[in-house]
Amino acid sequence: MFTFRRAAFVAVGSEMLRADRVDTNSLLASRLLQRCGYALVEKRCVEDDAGAIARAVRELAARTDLVVVSGGLGPTADDVTREGVAQAMGVGLLRHDALVKALEARYRRAGRTIPEIALRMADVIEGAEILPNPQGTAPGQLVTLDAAALVLLPGVPRELEEIFTTHLLPRWGCGAAMKVRTLRLSGVYESQVEERVSPLYDRFGREAVTILAGRGVVDLVLMARGDHADARLAEMDEAFSAVAGDDLFGRGEVTLPAAILMLCRERGWKLATAESCTGGLAAAQLTSVAGSSDVFVGSVVAYANELKEERLGVPRRLLEEHGAVSQETAEAMARGALGLGAQVGLAITGIAGPGGGSEDKPVGTVHVAAMTPNAARHRRFRFPGDRTFVRECATNYALDLLRRTLRET
Amino acid sequence: MFTFRRAAFVAVGSEMLRADRVDTNSLLASRLLQRCGYALVEKRCVEDDAGAIARAVRELAARTDLVVVSGGLGPTADDVTREGVAQAMGVGLLRHDALVKALEARYRRAGRTIPEIALRMADVIEGAEILPNPQGTAPGQLVTLDAAALVLLPGVPRELEEIFTTHLLPRWGCGAAMKVRTLRLSGVYESQVEERVSPLYDRFGREAVTILAGRGVVDLVLMARGDHADARLAEMDEAFSAVAGDDLFGRGEVTLPAAILMLCRERGWKLATAESCTGGLAAAQLTSVAGSSDVFVGSVVAYANELKEERLGVPRRLLEEHGAVSQETAEAMARGALGLGAQVGLAITGIAGPGGGSEDKPVGTVHVAAMTPNAARHRRFRFPGDRTFVRECATNYALDLLRRTLRET
Repeated sequence: MFTFRRAAFVAVGSEMLRADRVDTNSLLASRLLQRCGYALVEKRCVEDDAGAIARAVRELAARTDLVVVSGGLGPTADDVTREGVAQAMGVGLLRHDALVKALEARYRRAGRTIPEIALRMADVIEGAEILPNPQGTAPGQLVTLDAAALVLLPGVPRELEEIFTTHLLPRWGCGAAMKVRTLRLSGVYESQVEERVSPLYDRFGREAVTILAGRGVVDLVLMARGDHADARLAEMDEAFSAVAGDDLFGRGEVTLPAAILMLCRERGWKLATAESCTGGLAAAQLTSVAGSSDVFVGSVVAYANELKEERLGVPRRLLEEHGAVSQETAEAMARGALGLGAQVGLAITGIAGPGGGSEDKPVGTVHVAAMTPNAARHRRFRFPGDRTFVRECATNYALDLLRRTLRET
Repeated sequence: MFTFRRAAFVAVGSEMLRADRVDTNSLLASRLLQRCGYALVEKRCVEDDAGAIARAVRELAARTDLVVVSGGLGPTADDVTREGVAQAMGVGLLRHDALVKALEARYRRAGRTIPEIALRMADVIEGAEILPNPQGTAPGQLVTLDAAALVLLPGVPRELEEIFTTHLLPRWGCGAAMKVRTLRLSGVYESQVEERVSPLYDRFGREAVTILAGRGVVDLVLMARGDHADARLAEMDEAFSAVAGDDLFGRGEVTLPAAILMLCRERGWKLATAESCTGGLAAAQLTSVAGSSDVFVGSVVAYANELKEERLGVPRRLLEEHGAVSQETAEAMARGALGLGAQVGLAITGIAGPGGGSEDKPVGTVHVAAMTPNAARHRRFRFPGDRTFVRECATNYALDLLRRTLRET
């Protein structure tokens, strides 16, 4: 079982609440905190407002062991993190002489006189420990509120990281941090995975597993902590892999296209695709992998039926008899892909919608064919959802079928 | 001046607290809320824990007019947003018969039986209004806590957006609310746009304009409020359009590929692409538009040089003399695209990296060629950034060059 210490993160800055900016400092903080055995249990963005900062800090200090507040330590009028935290603690701010001198010297070195308002960077919360900031002007500060430690860090990422690494890691960082391993599954629904892994919750703990799903790819994130974290993770990996079976395509950062390219590479095979409804998405995914050019030769996106005939050699008779969205056409397209100079072909043809559906072949109907020198597989899908969803599902399930076909051979 | 109502956003999901994931739904929510006259004053990520959700909702309802909670409405055991909000309100959950039937039907259509646990998606908070979700399985829910409205929305962005747009915008986004018009620009950097529009800030107010930028496409979001909002917006549109000039490709929801397809359609021309480093991304973008098949015929993704020769007719001599990444090859590829049965061709060839760069042609070098029956244009780019960034920039700037070439003719 885990015994995390609980940490919270507050990003201060009204700009973080606009429609075009996300806080990414919390990712940095999350990574640094892990190394100290803290898990982030909540994060927030609040406005440049002392009252808002005070409220956030009070609420979080009451329910966590550590609150990291980032940003709002600069020289301008809207930098009010010091004021907000002091207000939460019911104490005042003291202007610190040595910091004033250091600030003045720093401005002088840059050939400037320090404006009065910038001296606020020398204000220290009563009782705070100063955390020097060699990279920038405003130092970090460390205080205690209720039973929680409370640390104020600059919003500039490299300053945040340096202060944390220099002053906090040495005192907090121990061997007890969290370790994480991700098992990656494809061609399976989240609810199916949930059902299959739930019997393992009793053994490993419900909170030790997170399931993340997206259009045909499901991640099982396994977590362990403490001195025996590695052994625990190995044990979990074994149990969850067994349950995942053939759906498992890799671990960690590996993507489905990367796994496919690796399977082809091991066999010395080149790969080509032929796409209709996905319009190039499968090729785009495969070529998103750096170094894909040693395996992937290319693709024909045959949106018009004439191109399916002329460029992929799908017989007109077949198109007329079975239609462009059929097993026969998908298989003929896959053979056409092999004609691009590949041993492995993948073809996708379907109805992405919103138009083009019929009773017989409703929107979301997709035929996929995969071919290798010694295997050929076909599957028909019917995906619910809009055009984007159908196209993305079609791409991922097609790549999954290709992966399974390659694994058989 | 604006007098916003105050809104808060809660992203539910333990995965959002890890070091590798940020919440981006809050950006979408922020944009949608703006259209209703709400400003986001706080946002949070909390764990998949009913207690944590309840605390967040209680704290935020006490100090805002509206709390949007996103995520945790799915079928798995860790989807506990319904439970958390019910707990905050001190009420229970009721299983809703019609929702159960709809869920069962949905699973049946996909050829599956609904697992018992997934029926939790039919649980409704006592007193809640159900907000139907045509795109997905779990509906949204709307309740009141203290004086605040509280809305539960799925974590899947397109479901969140559709429910908001269908059910909430019509009732909240009216009268005194803000009116918004978006001018869409391509082939231009954010900083260039900022410089050109800044003289207009004095006239219309800095807070009436937001610039949103992403890899070659820049949105100018114009806002006005009050009785004369429409007239004001028209006035702003005129002033900002004049400054945007040829960079403006459309307004509102129109995408760059949709604008291109429209230009081709108006001229009665078919379009084909030939791609190397973008590996199908341009074709995928063009075919993301519903109804693209009347204009777009297809694409050859010629990743291997042999395919550039065999399938696009690029002369070997030319490849040897100038290299695959050159103006000459790009132009020959565009002519090859015309050979797919189109009057308009777009070709992209470049070095996406991380490997393959040289002093002469560093990573990020991209050549683009666009051809119509009466114009041909070429541009060379050098994009900074990683493989993904280079590929996305290459795609968008290529589409932009095509748009400008079409407009000339």
